[in-house]
Amino acid sequence: MAESVYFFGEGRAEGDPKRRDLLGGKGAGLAEMTALGLPVPPGFTIATDVCTAFARSAAIPPQVQQAIAAAVTRLEKTMGARLGDHAAPLLVSVRSGARASMPGMMDTILNLGLNDAVAEGLAAQTKNPRFAFDAYRRFIAMHACIALGLSKDPFDRSLEEARAKVAAVRGIDRSRLNAEELKRLVPDSHIPAEELRALVTAFKAIVKKETGRDFPSEPREQLAQAIEAVFRSWNNQRAIVYRRMHEIPDDWGTACNVQAMVFGNLGDTSATGVAFTRDPSTGERKLYGEWLPNAQGEDVVAGIRTPQPLRAASRAPDDSLEATMPEAFRELARIASTLEKHFRDMQDLEFTIQAGKLYMLQCRTAKRAARAAVRAAVDMAKEGLIGKEEAVLRVDPSGLDQLLHPTLDPTAPKRLLARGLAASPGAASGHIVFNADEAERRAGQGKPVILVRVETSPEDIHGMKAARGILTARGGMTSHAAVVARGMGKPCVAGVSAVAVNYESQTMTVSVYDEAGHPTDTVTLKKGDVITVDGGSGHIYAGEVPTVSAALSGEFGELMSWADAARTMKVRANADTPLDARTARAFGAEGIGLCRTEHMFFEEERIEAMREMILADDSRGRAAALAKLLPFQREDFVGIFREMRGLPVTVRLLDPPLHEFLPTEAKQLEQLSRTMGVSVPKLAQRTKDLHEYNPMLGHRGVRLAITFPEIYAMQVRAILEAALQVGSEGTEVLPEIMIPLAITRAELERMRAIVDEVSGEVFGLAGKSIAFSFGTMIELPRAALLARELAHPAEFFSFGTNDLTQATMGLSRDDAGKFLPAYVETGILPRDPFVSLDQEGVGLLVETAAAGGRETRPGLKLGVCGEHGGDPPSIAFFQKIGLSYVSCSPFRVPIARLAASQAALRAGGQRGGHGTA
Amino acid sequence: MAESVYFFGEGRAEGDPKRRDLLGGKGAGLAEMTALGLPVPPGFTIATDVCTAFARSAAIPPQVQQAIAAAVTRLEKTMGARLGDHAAPLLVSVRSGARASMPGMMDTILNLGLNDAVAEGLAAQTKNPRFAFDAYRRFIAMHACIALGLSKDPFDRSLEEARAKVAAVRGIDRSRLNAEELKRLVPDSHIPAEELRALVTAFKAIVKKETGRDFPSEPREQLAQAIEAVFRSWNNQRAIVYRRMHEIPDDWGTACNVQAMVFGNLGDTSATGVAFTRDPSTGERKLYGEWLPNAQGEDVVAGIRTPQPLRAASRAPDDSLEATMPEAFRELARIASTLEKHFRDMQDLEFTIQAGKLYMLQCRTAKRAARAAVRAAVDMAKEGLIGKEEAVLRVDPSGLDQLLHPTLDPTAPKRLLARGLAASPGAASGHIVFNADEAERRAGQGKPVILVRVETSPEDIHGMKAARGILTARGGMTSHAAVVARGMGKPCVAGVSAVAVNYESQTMTVSVYDEAGHPTDTVTLKKGDVITVDGGSGHIYAGEVPTVSAALSGEFGELMSWADAARTMKVRANADTPLDARTARAFGAEGIGLCRTEHMFFEEERIEAMREMILADDSRGRAAALAKLLPFQREDFVGIFREMRGLPVTVRLLDPPLHEFLPTEAKQLEQLSRTMGVSVPKLAQRTKDLHEYNPMLGHRGVRLAITFPEIYAMQVRAILEAALQVGSEGTEVLPEIMIPLAITRAELERMRAIVDEVSGEVFGLAGKSIAFSFGTMIELPRAALLARELAHPAEFFSFGTNDLTQATMGLSRDDAGKFLPAYVETGILPRDPFVSLDQEGVGLLVETAAAGGRETRPGLKLGVCGEHGGDPPSIAFFQKIGLSYVSCSPFRVPIARLAASQAALRAGGQRGGHGTA
Repeated sequence: MAESVYFFGEGRAEGDPKRRDLLGGKGAGLAEMTALGLPVPPGFTIATDVCTAFARSAAIPPQVQQAIAAAVTRLEKTMGARLGDHAAPLLVSVRSGARASMPGMMDTILNLGLNDAVAEGLAAQTKNPRFAFDAYRRFIAMHACIALGLSKDPFDRSLEEARAKVAAVRGIDRSRLNAEELKRLVPDSHIPAEELRALVTAFKAIVKKETGRDFPSEPREQLAQAIEAVFRSWNNQRAIVYRRMHEIPDDWGTACNVQAMVFGNLGDTSATGVAFTRDPSTGERKLYGEWLPNAQGEDVVAGIRTPQPLRAASRAPDDSLEATMPEAFRELARIASTLEKHFRDMQDLEFTIQAGKLYMLQCRTAKRAARAAVRAAVDMAKEGLIGKEEAVLRVDPSGLDQLLHPTLDPTAPKRLLARGLAASPGAASGHIVFNADEAERRAGQGKPVILVRVETSPEDIHGMKAARGILTARGGMTSHAAVVARGMGKPCVAGVSAVAVNYESQTMTVSVYDEAGHPTDTVTLKKGDVITVDGGSGHIYAGEVPTVSAALSGEFGELMSWADAARTMKVRANADTPLDARTARAFGAEGIGLCRTEHMFFEEERIEAMREMILADDSRGRAAALAKLLPFQREDFVGIFREMRGLPVTVRLLDPPLHEFLPTEAKQLEQLSRTMGVSVPKLAQRTKDLHEYNPMLGHRGVRLAITFPEIYAMQVRAILEAALQVGSEGTEVLPEIMIPLAITRAELERMRAIVDEVSGEVFGLAGKSIAFSFGTMIELPRAALLARELAHPAEFFSFGTNDLTQATMGLSRDDAGKFLPAYVETGILPRDPFVSLDQEGVGLLVETAAAGGRETRPGLKLGVCGEHGGDPPSIAFFQKIGLSYVSCSPFRVPIARLAASQAALRAGGQRGGHGTA
Repeated sequence: MAESVYFFGEGRAEGDPKRRDLLGGKGAGLAEMTALGLPVPPGFTIATDVCTAFARSAAIPPQVQQAIAAAVTRLEKTMGARLGDHAAPLLVSVRSGARASMPGMMDTILNLGLNDAVAEGLAAQTKNPRFAFDAYRRFIAMHACIALGLSKDPFDRSLEEARAKVAAVRGIDRSRLNAEELKRLVPDSHIPAEELRALVTAFKAIVKKETGRDFPSEPREQLAQAIEAVFRSWNNQRAIVYRRMHEIPDDWGTACNVQAMVFGNLGDTSATGVAFTRDPSTGERKLYGEWLPNAQGEDVVAGIRTPQPLRAASRAPDDSLEATMPEAFRELARIASTLEKHFRDMQDLEFTIQAGKLYMLQCRTAKRAARAAVRAAVDMAKEGLIGKEEAVLRVDPSGLDQLLHPTLDPTAPKRLLARGLAASPGAASGHIVFNADEAERRAGQGKPVILVRVETSPEDIHGMKAARGILTARGGMTSHAAVVARGMGKPCVAGVSAVAVNYESQTMTVSVYDEAGHPTDTVTLKKGDVITVDGGSGHIYAGEVPTVSAALSGEFGELMSWADAARTMKVRANADTPLDARTARAFGAEGIGLCRTEHMFFEEERIEAMREMILADDSRGRAAALAKLLPFQREDFVGIFREMRGLPVTVRLLDPPLHEFLPTEAKQLEQLSRTMGVSVPKLAQRTKDLHEYNPMLGHRGVRLAITFPEIYAMQVRAILEAALQVGSEGTEVLPEIMIPLAITRAELERMRAIVDEVSGEVFGLAGKSIAFSFGTMIELPRAALLARELAHPAEFFSFGTNDLTQATMGLSRDDAGKFLPAYVETGILPRDPFVSLDQEGVGLLVETAAAGGRETRPGLKLGVCGEHGGDPPSIAFFQKIGLSYVSCSPFRVPIARLAASQAALRAGGQRGGHGTA
């Protein structure tokens, strides 16, 4: 472990900048910049493996301690200064720096090396005692809190007293001010040197009182404590939580960087700032950033002084760095350009100017908004900095959601009411309504409404259509509300457990919780009150919050065309109506992977015929009701086939359990009783008979057609008649008939027989035919296990990964809200398996089924039509196992196109896209 | 296919008797008996492959027709008689004979070869014109109905007219008699020769009228028609239904046997009869059977004349065969003994005595009652006829149910009301009651009651205990009612869909259906009416039907000891109470494979504490309620551990969703409100919040303990404290703690941590410890797929094949009643997967998990605790894949022991019984 300490300085770096795993992000950046000959204060990096060793034994291994001592000696030599030397003192910063950026999560100590003698020396040397004692009192407080584990409070109180003294001198009545107001009137920079000197004495007294020991005056002891503190901070609570949220492994550890201090607060020729090589909001190619004269780095972040722009501004006075320190600015611009070329990506830089000389303190890949990511990637490709494929790989597909939906104005004030699941992206404000009819009525009057329900059901669809946004108190990421809202491209926050909806009183009560999760208060909102839902974050706000609308740039289209060129898997959309189909096509869908037919039965004039069918006594009664439904279904398909001309359309035959269609309210029951001429009690009994304990595992899908074959026969007839009609208009129609929930080959053979019988009849009557294919969903474990058998009758498979996840994991997506969050938060499951495929469990079944199916039928077309079809990590998995296409909600099609393209590029185009899609 | 015709006669048989697949059962028996030198009328067998060919092309292949012609010629030579020769006429029988016995399902034609001339010749030759014309008229009717496809009715009417004429002659007033009464007064044997001759003419006229053609007078034409008719009968409706019921493949086909006729109706030295080599009811070793003098075989079956016993009877006059024809009897006894020794199994024989000479017409393995099967197998082993292992293999394990439970008196008159699922064996009569409290009350008054419910829930358990039998209108073979009833050894008929229960009016209405399934009538029964349930057949009868109680013979114990010696898998029982445990032990269980802890919470004094726990606001409230439950749980375990001394007890921690424990009635809610000091509306809301759409996939099993770890901690404490207590009494205790519904390794690791913490505390406090093991159920597909991971923390696996079947097939056992019967009836699934494991789907997961688990932990103990643990075919599968034990309800333990033993013997003891159980 002797190699665990890596020196950098004077144009040379011992560490390999590529070994971010060892050096951490900051250390790698410092090594890289040093090796590039850029002005970096020298120092050394203690590698991440020391952190791991420290976590195990709570001690720095002796040979590493020796290496640190040697590195300190070398640093002293390089700097011509020594730790603790009051004539030529060396001061250092000690900073954490993990492999992945974890901003603010771990600890940093600045100005280490100060003691009484050194402070006096520094005051003399800089002729700036205020600077010296300000640095000293800051260091004592920082070191005491971080390395010695003391509370910040006594130091803050002591500082406040000093401030009060200054205020008293100025004649300010302190008693009428709170701490913040006092700080604004008497900022740190107004505290004179003698007060700072007194503060140092006071701070040291605090340390003595709290620890029973003197503050360590020996700089090497300070350093040893500081390094241990940095390593210890890897396992502080907020760092652990942050890692959990960002899926950073606990065993990566952090590196520790010890670096000679440079000072931006030595006077008016000193400064500090941050810079981006391009605008992180828009991606525009210009040096962007902020700076502060006579300041330390923390002042820019702290927000007490208003930072100034880097580039010359038109306003007067021009306080930009460019205008104030033109030479330093030019140097910074040159370095920024060098670094961007070197790293071939946008950089985020930290710099300090000490007495007119520019020092670089950090460089890293810049975080950027989705819009900026797209523009920067496209621009860089055009500039020749990167290739088009790399440009495609640069953009995070998940971020595209931001571009495709309106978002909240980040600068607007907001009052957070509650948090739920970010179920469907976009933001919207409107008046609360509690039922679908009301939503439709008010929206008809031109009022924006937010539909609030405990949960939604298919009967609410017209209200969801009319609303600007949807809020549900229950349900997960694949609940009815979430799936339908995503399909409609409408904001939805689901599973807001803090909200209790009371339909009778037409109110919702929001519980407010403290940090420990105990309810502290409630807020009750009534019908008509205005709220804002942010489906991108899952937040609910009181009142109206202004939004920024979506805007797709020309670069977006360009990037997508490059992505499509590299892509091997097709991307289809899940779409149930001609309107959905049009949206899907506009977003680049290459077909419909899932057209659900049941939604077609919920419209007013149809639901009654559907109910007649369900409640019919016998086959004859069912046939009569189905005859009423046939023309509607045919018209639906005609519309969809026209929109999707030349592209395949997979139609799933009726899937949900029949009781979903039945009336739940007395009024509806009475109406149905009149229409059908059957008594209300008898209808109520029939409805009750259809109740199921576990409808998800009940009488649905192909099981309906095994007991009532007439239903599928009608649907197949509607599909084929529609296809003939649209085909006769000269439009190419590619229908694919899909059977849901099959678990045996025999079921599919029976369905194939029905399809053959109906198609024979329809084509015979028309005197012409149209090609179509016949396949099945794979959505239960048994289907996946027996895929080899199912592929005999089935010409294609479509994985219904929502249901497959439910059955494989035994998780109902409607009920899992009560415990799944706990599973994800505590790391039992890495993420919500309804959002991102459980690759090792459910994924294994998908892979097994794909292989089994292709064994029987080598050209078998394989697709995914569950929600995972729009999730980038899941898409990468589907590419890896060689599926032909993914299908997702229309608004996620661009995301899927980009994700599939990246997956193909990462796989070297080796797999995926088998068969035709 | 020239070899498809096999001749037998004169001590030699062309066919290999072992080829039952070709010769069919009857043909193989005839060949075998011929080869043994027994007196068999000669003939030939046309093999089953001809039937298959005939089914394909509706014609006998030409080369087979030639072979048949050659065989006929050879038969004529052997017999010294010729088809159609009126001086020396050859008459033959043409009979079906499939590989598996399908009694009465297919067709037979006797006396083939008769025409006018031959009949006259036969009359002259036998000097018995009555005999000749009786044979002739029977042949015409039989051939016309079977080979020519005519209705029986006109022949019956014609015969009735003849009977009426005879009656008129005797002065009987025909007009006051129905057909049956007339037949009793004028049996066939009373119709004189001249009337029979007239009947022949009448019958031929019927044929002419119905077919437009003369009855075929050419014997070879008759023969060709008859053979085709036999082959055609393989695909008649009742044969198809029978094959479906008995799982006989459609492509086996039947053979056709053509054999020279012998006549038992030639006079008083002729006779016909059937014989068993041992008593088929008791297994007693004595020739058993019936005979009729001067009769044809069908007369014995038809039941018009009362057959006489074979063996000498004490009553006078002794009309036994032994007394009447001692020589023929001795010959028959000698042959029976020869055949039993030859086949080494009980035989069922058909014989005819023609003019004093005995002919054997059929031999086959005898069907026997379960009791007889046990006795015969044990006796034969003792006689040295077979080995002990073969004796074990001889008894059908499923049949043991008959021995272990009371059955309906087969001779008692019964009025069938409805059919349901045979959910738990045994039969019982009692007064109907519609709720559990009433059941308990009435039973307390000494009245036998049958509990009738739409379905049962855990709250009904005391009523189920009190009732003699249970009937539910809903639910399948693994519904709550079925599982609990089997556990209690109580008769249960479940899923009687024809029954509508009305709790308000305290009545049940039974729909009566016609054969096409249309409802024709309803019967309404009220509280207190008496019905009888037969859980062995699934039948419900009106009123009381007498039962025959179970009786276990000494042979049963002997057979089971031989079975146990050959067995390699252990057999445990699912038992939740000390009483269950005692029953299980008495039936030979070698441990408890599943002790469900939730049932313990339903007793009155406990349910309230349970509800407090569930509805508590926080961890403290839960802890307080759990503290009340701890002593109860501990006492439960103390009782069970004492009963199971020295044997392992697997305790499953709490599994069902919490809402199952909540009050459903207002009264209970009010009481709980008082106890807990929480308002009724708030409690109602909390109850509502716990509702789940798909509770089977909801918040249950280990998921409860992830969110509320206190529950399992209490249970573990109860188990270990009980184990210490019983252990300190000097009793060996082997507890196994089992976690339900896990799907990840992390869940089990957390549970292990809870167990370690609690055990550390309990053992620390006691100053001593006790060994226990820690394992998990495998009951969701993901658990099976990731078994390799789960075996790290788990020391044993127990397959919960009920839940695994539900999830793998997406079938809720509570809801599948609406469509699963259709799946089984139409052959989509071979059988109810909740009764017999779906080996290719669910079984594959079990196999995968077993292999995966042993990869990680080679000695991993593997068991099954689902209902399949008591199903013989499933047990054979578990043996094949090498599980350590099966566990089933106590009353099925003997069945499982026998089935496991047979599986081990069939596998040659190669697999199964790995690890310790």
